Amino acid sequence: MTGSPPLSPAARRFLAQCFPGDAAVTSPEETLVYGTDASRRFAPASAVVRPETLEQVRELLAFAQAERIPILPRGRATNTVGDCVPVTGGIVVSTARLNRILEIDARDFVAVVEPGVVTGDLQAALAKERLFYAPDPASVKFSTLGGNAATCAGGMRAVKYGVTRDHILGIEAVLPGGDLLVAGGRTHKNVVGLDLTRLLVGSEGTLAFFTKLTVKLLPLPVATATLAVAYPTVDAALSAADDVFRAGILPVALELLGREAMQAVAAIAAVPWPDAAGAALFIRVDGSPEAVAADLRLLTAATAPAGPVWSQAAATPEAEEPLWELRRLLNPASFKAAPDKISDDVTVPRGRLREAAAGIAAIGREQRVRILVFGHIGDGNLHVNIMHDAAVADERDRALTARERVLMLCLGLRGTLSGEHGVGLSKLPFLDRQLDATHRTILSRIKAVFDPAGIMNPEKAY
Amino acid sequence: MTGSPPLSPAARRFLAQCFPGDAAVTSPEETLVYGTDASRRFAPASAVVRPETLEQVRELLAFAQAERIPILPRGRATNTVGDCVPVTGGIVVSTARLNRILEIDARDFVAVVEPGVVTGDLQAALAKERLFYAPDPASVKFSTLGGNAATCAGGMRAVKYGVTRDHILGIEAVLPGGDLLVAGGRTHKNVVGLDLTRLLVGSEGTLAFFTKLTVKLLPLPVATATLAVAYPTVDAALSAADDVFRAGILPVALELLGREAMQAVAAIAAVPWPDAAGAALFIRVDGSPEAVAADLRLLTAATAPAGPVWSQAAATPEAEEPLWELRRLLNPASFKAAPDKISDDVTVPRGRLREAAAGIAAIGREQRVRILVFGHIGDGNLHVNIMHDAAVADERDRALTARERVLMLCLGLRGTLSGEHGVGLSKLPFLDRQLDATHRTILSRIKAVFDPAGIMNPEKAY
Repeated sequence: MTGSPPLSPAARRFLAQCFPGDAAVTSPEETLVYGTDASRRFAPASAVVRPETLEQVRELLAFAQAERIPILPRGRATNTVGDCVPVTGGIVVSTARLNRILEIDARDFVAVVEPGVVTGDLQAALAKERLFYAPDPASVKFSTLGGNAATCAGGMRAVKYGVTRDHILGIEAVLPGGDLLVAGGRTHKNVVGLDLTRLLVGSEGTLAFFTKLTVKLLPLPVATATLAVAYPTVDAALSAADDVFRAGILPVALELLGREAMQAVAAIAAVPWPDAAGAALFIRVDGSPEAVAADLRLLTAATAPAGPVWSQAAATPEAEEPLWELRRLLNPASFKAAPDKISDDVTVPRGRLREAAAGIAAIGREQRVRILVFGHIGDGNLHVNIMHDAAVADERDRALTARERVLMLCLGLRGTLSGEHGVGLSKLPFLDRQLDATHRTILSRIKAVFDPAGIMNPEKAY
Repeated sequence: MTGSPPLSPAARRFLAQCFPGDAAVTSPEETLVYGTDASRRFAPASAVVRPETLEQVRELLAFAQAERIPILPRGRATNTVGDCVPVTGGIVVSTARLNRILEIDARDFVAVVEPGVVTGDLQAALAKERLFYAPDPASVKFSTLGGNAATCAGGMRAVKYGVTRDHILGIEAVLPGGDLLVAGGRTHKNVVGLDLTRLLVGSEGTLAFFTKLTVKLLPLPVATATLAVAYPTVDAALSAADDVFRAGILPVALELLGREAMQAVAAIAAVPWPDAAGAALFIRVDGSPEAVAADLRLLTAATAPAGPVWSQAAATPEAEEPLWELRRLLNPASFKAAPDKISDDVTVPRGRLREAAAGIAAIGREQRVRILVFGHIGDGNLHVNIMHDAAVADERDRALTARERVLMLCLGLRGTLSGEHGVGLSKLPFLDRQLDATHRTILSRIKAVFDPAGIMNPEKAY
């Protein structure tokens, strides 16, 4: 990771010709920022290009395969596991100029977009037509649909609506070598051929470069409501969450904040919950106004037996917003809680959340690191931020030890290393603990079907 | 298709040893019924085995690969496109004795089943615990979860809940050669490695033999309600369907019956709609009792502007049942409408349904065949039954011509050859019209990754 393999003079000529003006950059100063992503890892890129047309992408992938130059697809680089980091050098291909919403079709209930469209921008454009793209990753305001598809992004609405995979109907992609692959289409159901669309979703840039996505739309829910409710302990909060499902409610979102996470938020903002609160649930429902009002009553009843120490219901967007703002403050709050953090997104079977939460707390005590736990517990998906100061002797080591133990704890509970971020670079060393040799052989061979020369985002994901 | 390649004496010995007693049968009388499926095509099987254990399946797939003997996975053979027909001969592997519900876990919200479990049996077992497996193919009372997964079965509840793919969390499968592949798991979110689970779903038996499925559960909706409403024309009914979505309602089911389909039902049962009815919608909603009551009021209002000639609302299961029974009568009714039928399940973008319905009606007139149209229009998924009498001179030819024109019409509307049945044998001749050479090459190479000797359900699907 100490230097990028320089491009040959022929490669430089090709790039200058195919990507005129500032569409290609090769100087270290200009490419520097393209060497990292939200994982904070860094490796220098050999070059960065910003295609505007399908033809440019095809020419690039033909050239790159012939010359065996790595190709690194890149959206807004919000990836937390290093998927955008050019560890082998190579050409970073930014989707920044492939950023058009090509179609919003209110009759077909589809939108067609280029991969560089920011997900939140699409959602805003859809809302004007009372349409709805359901996936809602936390990064929605600055991550792209191409990146969301490449990682099968999750987010808060997955409990009711599922993840990105469930909302991508078709993908147009360029294969290494330059061939065009059209997978899926604009029908809401399609069972012709193997499901290449969902094979591309979540492939972390290792198979092909996406040039167009067709996404499924739903009618925009007319109303939403939120209940925030705090309990003395995580166990009580999880028990309340069980009661919510037992009442037959399928919430849009069911979020947990653990004690450390609540304290981190309290350190940077005024919070409405009392000191006795050791865990909080943020629960949202949607539907018709009548349905939402009824669900809110049901939620209030279902969350009572576990013994809340505080609760607040919000039945208008204006009232809901400050509650969700508290949830969103977790990210900035965690940056203030310590100089460094290791973030993970482990997921366990829903019934094992208690054991996971207790185990993580024990690991934090044992390794003397503060661990913030929060997440999408409706899916068993916990975000674990291991806070530390890498400058303090052995604190980084203890944080890394804690991290490995958290991952192994969750696998031991029949969980998965990642629920929504992917494997990238940072979980690759642990992959053998989850996937056996047969599985990994199949993955490698499928990779070779798409990318025989191994140029697509090499040394990542699997 | 005229005779099955006989098994070698060694193969017979292997089967007798690995599948003692009546677990293996090889006589033509006993294997006869295993030569066909709901497609009514026939080819004789060389042998039929009914494994009870994973070990038997592994031994069988090791032997079959070594000996290059085709393997035909088979559930209850409700497949309508010939996926269960042993066109190359070979060993039919029935899941009849792999039929245990292994786990229903109300805390993890998962069930683990063997592939031979009938989907309706699982739903009934779940309902007792107020749990819910959402996919609901029309064949639910006699098709299996293994078969549903192999074809990515759809069904009426797909509008709100999606298809089988969206509800399978993990698959344990035996690869040709006998290796075990464990894809996915019991977490509701999982993005580790390429998505082999969804690659197996819909693979029509061509990649591996499923031995265990982990499915996602939801809380059982507390209440449901149904509105049935008839209009003079299909256009008016489709306009009402648009209005339903425009009102922000996401129904569980949104079914259309065309005029010919309604007449076929009327020929075998008393129907509540007037003669003036040329199309009907059956719309179901679910949720809390209050939500359902509110949605029913919204539905009634949303379906009014299109000018219904009849409508009936049902807010209790007892009142809903006779309405859905009318919808279910379509299948027996279509068998009575003519001696023979060709069934398809084309799907078009939702906004192209008008053109599809009008085009199909025109094809019926032109070819002088009666075409029943009905289906899951919330997904753009039309069932097209081309009724004819194969014994009448040239009627079969006209039916086949009509069928090809219907398929091409729907592809021309940017649709797909199949929304839920798969390709199997019967749509394979048309596959080139939908998938280009690049796409098909990828499919073949992925097949070879799983099944290098090409023994899994050969000559099917792609």
